[in-house]
Amino acid sequence: MNAKDKIREILALADIELNGPDPWDFQVHDERFYQRALSHGELGLGESYMDGWWDVPQLDEFFSKTQKVQLQDKVRTFSFVWLAAKGRFLNRQTQSASKKVAHDHYDLGNDLYRAMLDKNMQYTCAYWKDAKTLDEAQENKLHLVCRKLYLKPGMRVLELGSGFGGLARFMAKEYGCEVVSYNISREQMNFAREFCAGLPVRLEEKDYREAAHEPQFDRVVAVGLCEHIGHKNHRSFLQLARAKLRDGGLFLLHTIGNSKTVTSTNPWHDKYIFARCLIPSMPQLAVAMEGLWTMEDWHTFGPDYDYTLMAWWKNFDSHYCTLDKRRYDQRFYRMWKFYLLTSAGAFRSRRLNLWQMVLSKGDIEGYVPVR
Amino acid sequence: MNAKDKIREILALADIELNGPDPWDFQVHDERFYQRALSHGELGLGESYMDGWWDVPQLDEFFSKTQKVQLQDKVRTFSFVWLAAKGRFLNRQTQSASKKVAHDHYDLGNDLYRAMLDKNMQYTCAYWKDAKTLDEAQENKLHLVCRKLYLKPGMRVLELGSGFGGLARFMAKEYGCEVVSYNISREQMNFAREFCAGLPVRLEEKDYREAAHEPQFDRVVAVGLCEHIGHKNHRSFLQLARAKLRDGGLFLLHTIGNSKTVTSTNPWHDKYIFARCLIPSMPQLAVAMEGLWTMEDWHTFGPDYDYTLMAWWKNFDSHYCTLDKRRYDQRFYRMWKFYLLTSAGAFRSRRLNLWQMVLSKGDIEGYVPVR
Repeated sequence: MNAKDKIREILALADIELNGPDPWDFQVHDERFYQRALSHGELGLGESYMDGWWDVPQLDEFFSKTQKVQLQDKVRTFSFVWLAAKGRFLNRQTQSASKKVAHDHYDLGNDLYRAMLDKNMQYTCAYWKDAKTLDEAQENKLHLVCRKLYLKPGMRVLELGSGFGGLARFMAKEYGCEVVSYNISREQMNFAREFCAGLPVRLEEKDYREAAHEPQFDRVVAVGLCEHIGHKNHRSFLQLARAKLRDGGLFLLHTIGNSKTVTSTNPWHDKYIFARCLIPSMPQLAVAMEGLWTMEDWHTFGPDYDYTLMAWWKNFDSHYCTLDKRRYDQRFYRMWKFYLLTSAGAFRSRRLNLWQMVLSKGDIEGYVPVR
Repeated sequence: MNAKDKIREILALADIELNGPDPWDFQVHDERFYQRALSHGELGLGESYMDGWWDVPQLDEFFSKTQKVQLQDKVRTFSFVWLAAKGRFLNRQTQSASKKVAHDHYDLGNDLYRAMLDKNMQYTCAYWKDAKTLDEAQENKLHLVCRKLYLKPGMRVLELGSGFGGLARFMAKEYGCEVVSYNISREQMNFAREFCAGLPVRLEEKDYREAAHEPQFDRVVAVGLCEHIGHKNHRSFLQLARAKLRDGGLFLLHTIGNSKTVTSTNPWHDKYIFARCLIPSMPQLAVAMEGLWTMEDWHTFGPDYDYTLMAWWKNFDSHYCTLDKRRYDQRFYRMWKFYLLTSAGAFRSRRLNLWQMVLSKGDIEGYVPVR
């Protein structure tokens, strides 16, 4: 069987037709695609998309369909196996490596993120309950986090992973808290310093592991950090958070969740988007938590990340014309589109989820969940 | 150091005084107690209580305090090690063994359970939100389960573990569902048949594993069964539930949760209360679920079990005078008191929790949690 027939057969498993009429069908512009995809798997798929060798009118739906039937498992290549082996045997999320990741992705340029995100500069999943716009949904999420933590004026909060400082600012401004926040992305911290000016927010441009030197806090929060720390560091991360929380306090952990336990991400994402990222699974977190944390509340809202990513894509696409083309060329545009829409598809297929957990030391009388 | 001094020293770790003045302090009536407790650990503690060798005015609070500091780990004995080894290497929850457990505990006598439980005969944790009485809290729990499952009239529900038929009856009567329910306790099934008379409820006096012969259902529910199936059967239980659920359906799993992974229960409970019971931990369930279920919602309300057990204890104590003393003698009274109040203490200390999970096959667009 030649490469084209093989690809046709694989796509058919997900009910996708090669050069077919549906918006999720696959249109090939360059015949070299078939061999490249077979040889290089997910990396070849993504790179050939960036090169314009193929298109799908509705990329998000294409990826939702392929992931529902776990099509990626049908084409396993050397690059995947190599990455999986590295993830299994090495700690790919050391402090120095993490610094580089932050630089490559989060320091891409705040103009890009400003064009794409909401007014609170939230680069994590929004909460769409009763919300119509991205701005509303992200403000919703910020309130959700604060309400789940039962924040009160004067409380001291440790944030591990600041993003652009939007949550720290919100906690200080709307809930009267004092916040200390750790993040290693220089560009994000530049933004955050301005964003939080005049508020009781101390920003530390340091790895989360350096928070070990802090005293204890009333609350600890980590929104969107856990995806970057790596499975080899889950336990020490959860130990650190516990050590920094006062007795009777609460810890909110917001993370993407993987329906499957893996020790590496896919090669295309690893190379172009989030190097060394590792989406934790339930067994990984459950094992890492044992003896440290009591699960007070576990909220799943992965489908909201589908909406969030589609809103980001819409913003990026419509503001792309305003961005500097020397930094964000056509290949970047296709790369970013591929990233946003494949991610939306991953949440739509339920392969990925979004988990918000409220954790205690098991020393509180009980917890009333908030939605 | 003699036995008495050793016991005094161990109790002091939990701030409990030997023959002290507080209601959680330990009053010894028979000096042989010290040696028996040291030699036989939790089994000796429980048996010597049944024999009247010691008392604590507030047994529940005593156990909450000892479990907060994990006092039981200080006295590890041969009977514990033997039980742990059996749990690790044998499947102690075969169909024939399960039959005996049901007979020993659940067939004790419906007069006992009628005296202790609410009007819906719920022998699992109630939901005390906005409830003042046990009756209200149990009806609350029944509604909670039905609302979380988004039951609609005409839906077919498979229940694994019927108890006294209270939930099956409620689903049929209040939500217009057809229910098929499996349970191996003869006495419970006798009660359930009368309780559900005239309603579309089919009761099967069979092991849950025999439900493999059923067709698929719109919903599957298991309230209080998972504690009995044993860690070696978690995976096959979750596979069975999945096989019996139609695509797009929901499965509600209600279980006590252990903050620690173990492969056996404590020797006294194993001998007198629930033989072969195994309270699952988060890692055990997470590993058993992978690839089968998507966690749509995880609700924790362990402190409600403390209130439920205290209500059961109050009912049992105040109705004890009406029970047949030939079946329920003074030694039984102390055994039952020990069981209810040590359990209340285990939930109060947060060593045990109550988990209600809503699970899907990962083929629904999302789930709106209910509280």
